[in-house]
Amino acid sequence: MEFKVKDISLAKQGRLNIEWAENHMPVMMELRKRYAKSKPLKGLKIAGCLHVTKETAVLVETLKMCGAQVAWSGCNPLSTQDDVAAALAKAGIPIFAWRGNHKEYYWCIEQVLKIKPHITVDDGADLVFTIHKKHRELIPDIIGGCEETATGMVRIRAMAAEGKLSYPIISVSDAQTKFEFDSTWGTGQSTVDGILRATNLLLAGKKVVIGGFGHVASGIAKRMKGMGAHVTVCEVDPVKALKAAMEGFNVSSMDEASKFGDLFVTATGCKHVITTKHIRNMKNGAIVANSGHFNVEIDVAGLEKLAKKKRTIRKDNVEYTLPNGKKIYLLAEGRLVNISAAEGHPSSVMDMSFANQFLSVLRLAKSKNLEPKVYEISREQDNLIAGLKLKSMGMKFDNLTKEQEKYLCSWEEGT
Amino acid sequence: MEFKVKDISLAKQGRLNIEWAENHMPVMMELRKRYAKSKPLKGLKIAGCLHVTKETAVLVETLKMCGAQVAWSGCNPLSTQDDVAAALAKAGIPIFAWRGNHKEYYWCIEQVLKIKPHITVDDGADLVFTIHKKHRELIPDIIGGCEETATGMVRIRAMAAEGKLSYPIISVSDAQTKFEFDSTWGTGQSTVDGILRATNLLLAGKKVVIGGFGHVASGIAKRMKGMGAHVTVCEVDPVKALKAAMEGFNVSSMDEASKFGDLFVTATGCKHVITTKHIRNMKNGAIVANSGHFNVEIDVAGLEKLAKKKRTIRKDNVEYTLPNGKKIYLLAEGRLVNISAAEGHPSSVMDMSFANQFLSVLRLAKSKNLEPKVYEISREQDNLIAGLKLKSMGMKFDNLTKEQEKYLCSWEEGT
Amino acid sequence: MEFKVKDISLAKQGRLNIEWAENHMPVMMELRKRYAKSKPLKGLKIAGCLHVTKETAVLVETLKMCGAQVAWSGCNPLSTQDDVAAALAKAGIPIFAWRGNHKEYYWCIEQVLKIKPHITVDDGADLVFTIHKKHRELIPDIIGGCEETATGMVRIRAMAAEGKLSYPIISVSDAQTKFEFDSTWGTGQSTVDGILRATNLLLAGKKVVIGGFGHVASGIAKRMKGMGAHVTVCEVDPVKALKAAMEGFNVSSMDEASKFGDLFVTATGCKHVITTKHIRNMKNGAIVANSGHFNVEIDVAGLEKLAKKKRTIRKDNVEYTLPNGKKIYLLAEGRLVNISAAEGHPSSVMDMSFANQFLSVLRLAKSKNLEPKVYEISREQDNLIAGLKLKSMGMKFDNLTKEQEKYLCSWEEGT
Amino acid sequence: MEFKVKDISLAKQGRLNIEWAENHMPVMMELRKRYAKSKPLKGLKIAGCLHVTKETAVLVETLKMCGAQVAWSGCNPLSTQDDVAAALAKAGIPIFAWRGNHKEYYWCIEQVLKIKPHITVDDGADLVFTIHKKHRELIPDIIGGCEETATGMVRIRAMAAEGKLSYPIISVSDAQTKFEFDSTWGTGQSTVDGILRATNLLLAGKKVVIGGFGHVASGIAKRMKGMGAHVTVCEVDPVKALKAAMEGFNVSSMDEASKFGDLFVTATGCKHVITTKHIRNMKNGAIVANSGHFNVEIDVAGLEKLAKKKRTIRKDNVEYTLPNGKKIYLLAEGRLVNISAAEGHPSSVMDMSFANQFLSVLRLAKSKNLEPKVYEISREQDNLIAGLKLKSMGMKFDNLTKEQEKYLCSWEEGT
Repeated sequence: MEFKVKDISLAKQGRLNIEWAENHMPVMMELRKRYAKSKPLKGLKIAGCLHVTKETAVLVETLKMCGAQVAWSGCNPLSTQDDVAAALAKAGIPIFAWRGNHKEYYWCIEQVLKIKPHITVDDGADLVFTIHKKHRELIPDIIGGCEETATGMVRIRAMAAEGKLSYPIISVSDAQTKFEFDSTWGTGQSTVDGILRATNLLLAGKKVVIGGFGHVASGIAKRMKGMGAHVTVCEVDPVKALKAAMEGFNVSSMDEASKFGDLFVTATGCKHVITTKHIRNMKNGAIVANSGHFNVEIDVAGLEKLAKKKRTIRKDNVEYTLPNGKKIYLLAEGRLVNISAAEGHPSSVMDMSFANQFLSVLRLAKSKNLEPKVYEISREQDNLIAGLKLKSMGMKFDNLTKEQEKYLCSWEEGT
Repeated sequence: MEFKVKDISLAKQGRLNIEWAENHMPVMMELRKRYAKSKPLKGLKIAGCLHVTKETAVLVETLKMCGAQVAWSGCNPLSTQDDVAAALAKAGIPIFAWRGNHKEYYWCIEQVLKIKPHITVDDGADLVFTIHKKHRELIPDIIGGCEETATGMVRIRAMAAEGKLSYPIISVSDAQTKFEFDSTWGTGQSTVDGILRATNLLLAGKKVVIGGFGHVASGIAKRMKGMGAHVTVCEVDPVKALKAAMEGFNVSSMDEASKFGDLFVTATGCKHVITTKHIRNMKNGAIVANSGHFNVEIDVAGLEKLAKKKRTIRKDNVEYTLPNGKKIYLLAEGRLVNISAAEGHPSSVMDMSFANQFLSVLRLAKSKNLEPKVYEISREQDNLIAGLKLKSMGMKFDNLTKEQEKYLCSWEEGT
Repeated sequence: MEFKVKDISLAKQGRLNIEWAENHMPVMMELRKRYAKSKPLKGLKIAGCLHVTKETAVLVETLKMCGAQVAWSGCNPLSTQDDVAAALAKAGIPIFAWRGNHKEYYWCIEQVLKIKPHITVDDGADLVFTIHKKHRELIPDIIGGCEETATGMVRIRAMAAEGKLSYPIISVSDAQTKFEFDSTWGTGQSTVDGILRATNLLLAGKKVVIGGFGHVASGIAKRMKGMGAHVTVCEVDPVKALKAAMEGFNVSSMDEASKFGDLFVTATGCKHVITTKHIRNMKNGAIVANSGHFNVEIDVAGLEKLAKKKRTIRKDNVEYTLPNGKKIYLLAEGRLVNISAAEGHPSSVMDMSFANQFLSVLRLAKSKNLEPKVYEISREQDNLIAGLKLKSMGMKFDNLTKEQEKYLCSWEEGT
Repeated sequence: MEFKVKDISLAKQGRLNIEWAENHMPVMMELRKRYAKSKPLKGLKIAGCLHVTKETAVLVETLKMCGAQVAWSGCNPLSTQDDVAAALAKAGIPIFAWRGNHKEYYWCIEQVLKIKPHITVDDGADLVFTIHKKHRELIPDIIGGCEETATGMVRIRAMAAEGKLSYPIISVSDAQTKFEFDSTWGTGQSTVDGILRATNLLLAGKKVVIGGFGHVASGIAKRMKGMGAHVTVCEVDPVKALKAAMEGFNVSSMDEASKFGDLFVTATGCKHVITTKHIRNMKNGAIVANSGHFNVEIDVAGLEKLAKKKRTIRKDNVEYTLPNGKKIYLLAEGRLVNISAAEGHPSSVMDMSFANQFLSVLRLAKSKNLEPKVYEISREQDNLIAGLKLKSMGMKFDNLTKEQEKYLCSWEEGT
């Protein structure tokens, strides 16, 4: 077996971390228990290109326990946990991933594709694209693929629209049990976590300005409020802004809020939510962070130009002195503060996302000869995962009686 | 002019109530200001069949100020506010409505249709149906209609699907600025209000069980929590149940929750959420209420049969003694407790719903010769209304720059 | 037996209300169960002067069940619930109370004193004062008295300080299980209740300004926040103001807040928290209410002078038109909005206050020959009541082990 | 000048950290501005024995700027931040402190006393005790001392009670602006912070059991709730337990709660809140932490004996395998998780505690010849500090008018 990781001696710590993840991924453990014996993936080869973290390791090993032959690479040059990669290598997985593999990123993907996969598992669609562009010889044997992210699905749907998608893809990204949970509760908590690690700031009583009130930003707003902060929401969508107001948040424009905020966090998916104009407005000592996907939400380039002095105060915390003498603190270079300064999504949130991946792989394994188009997660799969999660939390839910089902079909919800 | 109301001498109190509503309907007042001068509805006749309340009066008089000739009836035999009806009559509106008009309900509708309307405004689609069934001679002159409720839209969409809809209908019911606000925040608050009026119960520390976690029920859950109650949510949809758990609510089955709840409130849209089995489980002194549309959510008939004794304790609060000696208290006969025991949606929520009605009437007035099908509320209309509401609350929001708009078109939200 | 009530035929409704109160006073019911059989008050005569409400009736009947002979009058000309008074009369209690007995208020007290009490139960100390001033002949037979209110205790403590207190008084007012619960949670909820009944205002998204952040005002602030309001606290005590800020409330001066508030509620114990200067600052449509003890917190006299027009809009809701044309709405004449427009403290809060009264009467009955001074509620009594309340709510608490008790004696809580 | 620190080359990083603290200690900065020019401490020598952290450095340098000559040592062998110590040394402060100075702890104190202090600043009273026991020759020149902690004050009050206190001590520990803020909000936040760093656990939806509901524990409970956790409170004091219930927390015994909790946090000041009996009850995977002062709240010794296997999973996170196979995770060895796994109180909370220290030193400097007893913080000092803090947060508060002051003197708060 071949692999390439940073340091195989890290395997022991990696194994501990994987076990910790297993402890907090009860849905995955339950699915593993249900399927491992019957080996439903026996004879199938799966290529994966997805952040190599302790949670991903749980997915990889579950696929293997179900009979699949798996090869894996990371989907981002910086996100690999080297100890986890080592543990997977030691466990016999052909893995090609290390933190900082900017140069050999595509080389790793090539190694993974040598497995001649029946199924691809992607986060960002790099496997799908590489296969479509460079390895079309693999397509005839491919049953289908799964894609984790909205970003990847945009690209895949564009291909499908142009008639260029050559094998079926299940859009894991659209599972309710994925985006309604990791975005709001995962990012909400880990953003608070990252900001505390970078600043040790007392949040109670602080004026915190949140750019956006979508799935991610509203989660951050709720958690900040939960820590005692006085939260102001800035939105471009008046309906979302009004929802924020009804939920008890102050609502303002960034032009106004930039004057009174102690801490700013953006999570809009848009660019330049905080401009140099806003930065000039800020109070001395204001702290600025981003928890949106790309590092474009704060005009960091503009800030760099504007500032007359720059120095690192603590880890992930850089002080910029403006020409007017005010000091502004930028966390994690304006990149995802929850991943850069903390640990990103907790295991118990990834539990549901990866259960969607695993069940989608099973679905592909069972249903060969699918048309090459995009498939949605079924309502049943979402319900199964949510139900298992509730059970693992010791919580019960009700089932419709036949009488109730009949009632719901014959009547619709009223005024 | 003709009208029929209970007591014209109530007009003065009715006018006071209409003024109070105007004070809390700033969006309607702003639209009135914008449009009243140019009389965009001049020459148009509008027939309305919609709860005659102080808020509806603001809509009716706005239509009139914009040049329309209006005739109006109630859409429910019990919902008319007689003082408001008197005030409208005194103001020269041909109005046919009084509380308790079970017998002459359809006679009232007939009177209203004598106006030969160009536009119909419905809440439950009774005008649409009467016209389609009995007064097809009116159809050629009709530009279109607006429908307020989900229930009405179900009926209308069914007609459209069968090719039997003979004039265009705008579905006001689907406006985000309607259902996301009156359901959650309007019903949430008024349910607490109704329960307090019927019981004077201290909610802090009480175990409150909410049947459902949809738009209505989640609003009730939040408000109960806001009053210090310990809230348990019972759901049949595991995804919604999991959301409730993530928001900090206890989640259980009704079989379990029926054993420990102090107060039960249903709002599911389904029937028999609380059965006699659950009622038998309940603690002595448990209080049961419903805030869902129909009075089927609690098995009241079953309770009536089960109980060996029944007596009224206070207004909207009836004590049932079970064979086992336990006493259970049913509020408002299991009908909508927020309307029966309190006053239903506050004016400032109806402000947005009726702004949708008004703007939809304007849209019909402008765009003649529409195909006879169902039309949705536009995103722009929702944004306009939300924007005006925010402004009236003294809250600002941001606008996308051209650069940002371009960015959003070229990229989609990431992972 | 003699009595004087408004209408004895109301007894049936009064009895229903007393039963409803019993259902929500589990601590009183438990104490009744524990003591009724052994008749520990046998042979004792008790005179009471305390608001005649359904909750008081539970206290009165408990005293009677424990063997006491009881006579009762109201302690406020306006607070008597006439149906409850009738039910007590019918049950054989010599009661002298009706709503509106301004003129014969002291006559009623004289009737009650004819019983020649061994123990007095007061709310405002009127029995204590009448006895000390006019009926000193009763003093030799009096074992002691209980006083419910802070106001009454101020007067009694002043007497004690001057050496003029002639019999012992237990200060029920200082029980933790009284003032920490009825002030914060009782008034907090009933203030929201009263304001909703008087206005039907949607609280979500509204700017609510609270005058004060003491026990009462902080309870109102929390409940308003729980209803989705954006709460601003105005305080004269900077430590309390800072606490409010740390708990997530906006903090401002009344000079500033008077400009942006939609709704103002005072509960400070001070006068002129809202002056005519503040009223002039207010937005058109602002609503003003008070939940502090006396109607001096809002300068109502000043408002009356300032306004050029005044009219009643709804029950408990009066519109004042200022010279500048703005309209301001005053609820319940600036008197306690929670009692005037709603029903005051819920039964389950009075449960604890009256358990303190009852146990204090028992304590007096047992321990004769007490010195004539003020006695505090014991920590044990507070613990007993809190423990019974928790049990009735189905909640458990821990007990210190001997080892833990020893530890706590030898060490004090650290940094 | 003499000093002893770990590594003087760390001074640069230490200075950055001190500056970061200054940015978040606006009250101290304001006091520095007010007093630095007039040098009110000129000619005075101050000995300090208090955790050497970035916040303490701000206090030390403020004392120096006000004219004092200062010498300093740490008050705990493990709490010194070596970079801060280096920065202070470089700035010319005779400082004797390094992380891990178990052996030379008292030697350091001896060095500091060589300054022959006029004023002592203590955290735990080690200076006071050393002087009283070994250096009584210093007493005649000592004006007085300040003590930061409750623990220290217990010892000092015991001395005073026995007539053995030889110089006056101001009890900074009892300032409202100290204990009401750092206990509740400082520890509340930093406990969440520490647990997240040690576990990366998703708190939303988790069952978190809090041992205690005093100042510290109630703060933790609120913050856990704010993160979406389902919080259960275990208390031995039924009044506190009832308060918790009224604030919306579930209340139970540890015997019960130990069966369902996912995460346990103790903060009671008592010992063995969690015993091996409770640990045996726990679910597999349960996590246990302490945020009370001493590491006795969890029976760690019992757990060590009970467990058949033990291994470190991550920093501050140790897995114990019980004989029944269940795994329990203990954070930070059962020591203060907020300090061990995170950074303890944020600067902006220490701002108020140290402002109390500073103003108490000034008070001693001004008022010589004080009797040797314990002095309380004045209400005025608390108000001054709270007022400055509010101002720094951009928040206003009201002032009593003369009319209001008069009213408050003549009347007391009512019922």
